Amino acid sequence: MDELKIIELKESVFADNDRDAARLRAQLKGEKTFLLNLMSAPGSGKTSTLLALARELRGEVRMAVMEADIDATVDARAMRNAGVESIQLHTGGMCHLDADMTRQGLRELDTADLDLVVLENVGNLVCPAEFDTGAAKNMTILSVPEGHDKPLKYPLMYETCQLLVINKIDVLPYFDFDVDQAVEYARMRNPDIEVIVISAKTGEGIPKLAEWILKQVKEWNT
Amino acid sequence: MDELKIIELKESVFADNDRDAARLRAQLKGEKTFLLNLMSAPGSGKTSTLLALARELRGEVRMAVMEADIDATVDARAMRNAGVESIQLHTGGMCHLDADMTRQGLRELDTADLDLVVLENVGNLVCPAEFDTGAAKNMTILSVPEGHDKPLKYPLMYETCQLLVINKIDVLPYFDFDVDQAVEYARMRNPDIEVIVISAKTGEGIPKLAEWILKQVKEWNT
Repeated sequence: MDELKIIELKESVFADNDRDAARLRAQLKGEKTFLLNLMSAPGSGKTSTLLALARELRGEVRMAVMEADIDATVDARAMRNAGVESIQLHTGGMCHLDADMTRQGLRELDTADLDLVVLENVGNLVCPAEFDTGAAKNMTILSVPEGHDKPLKYPLMYETCQLLVINKIDVLPYFDFDVDQAVEYARMRNPDIEVIVISAKTGEGIPKLAEWILKQVKEWNT
Repeated sequence: MDELKIIELKESVFADNDRDAARLRAQLKGEKTFLLNLMSAPGSGKTSTLLALARELRGEVRMAVMEADIDATVDARAMRNAGVESIQLHTGGMCHLDADMTRQGLRELDTADLDLVVLENVGNLVCPAEFDTGAAKNMTILSVPEGHDKPLKYPLMYETCQLLVINKIDVLPYFDFDVDQAVEYARMRNPDIEVIVISAKTGEGIPKLAEWILKQVKEWNT
């Protein structure tokens, strides 16, 4: 396997990120590439969810992953070891990605040949929600050990996401986590948010998540 | 019990946060108040650790807690219900606290009568590490479900903390978490970082953490 590609991102030159994001989104629409922006707290299971998803989607879509981190390459390497096309983006200390930083990553992928690109954003429930990356859809993961009160504390994250994935459902017996309460709090922030309950570890719910993704990719291309 | 105090923080007027933080630290030193800045990812157990700690320290020190959040008052209420003096700081969307925001909170507490104030920072492994709050010491919590690779991904957090608390050790059997590996990664970032392993839920390690705190408070006052 060739050397892992690590992109050192530069700060954006565009003052108006919203307009730049709209431009990127239009470009990706033209290329029929669905960009999904995946956000969560550190340790919610973004990478393991993507690994499970990539296994489920194999042969269904042409997929690549951009792993954004402040430092380290562990996630991109894990993807590569599992045979998923992936690159590592280093933010140089920045706590989020905007549209131009996302574009810098996309340039390193041949998006014209891809149906689905997932941007695994920096693990952070605050800042990434403030910046439109140009993605077609935003998804957040809340894992059982984090507690069901998170939508109360990080409102913008839930307002900007179309899908909430509740992960690590296999450890539900060991934590005081109320799934219904989590969903209720999330819908207080965003009444339209869809919810899928999974365990990236056991595979529970992964087919349902794959189905949701395929539906989005299909709608994006019509 | 009287009404919970909620402080809506204003953005700082000081351009040089480092100097402002040094000034606040000197003031607190004069008042013999030890300020501890507690940082972690969302859901690592900051509040439950502080609740267990407050029980352990009862009668030993005069303690108060400042709960910083973007929104919600659940943490400050939990503290108050447990009889711990606490106020809620709202950051107005900001992802971190700096020294001046910390000072705005401290003004609402009678610090001259307090030995120990804990600032529970916004749940975020990135931004809070970049801003000196004026605290005497910084502490971070890494919980078992988050995974032992976090020190690799969030270097600055580990560089700026004097104490790493590994929490939720009671669920170790259900996760692929290697305590030795976590400590090794943390010490790659900061060779001097002290480590205490706890379960805020079962109380394991809480006396050791309380002992560490008491030692710091004593050293601060001599």
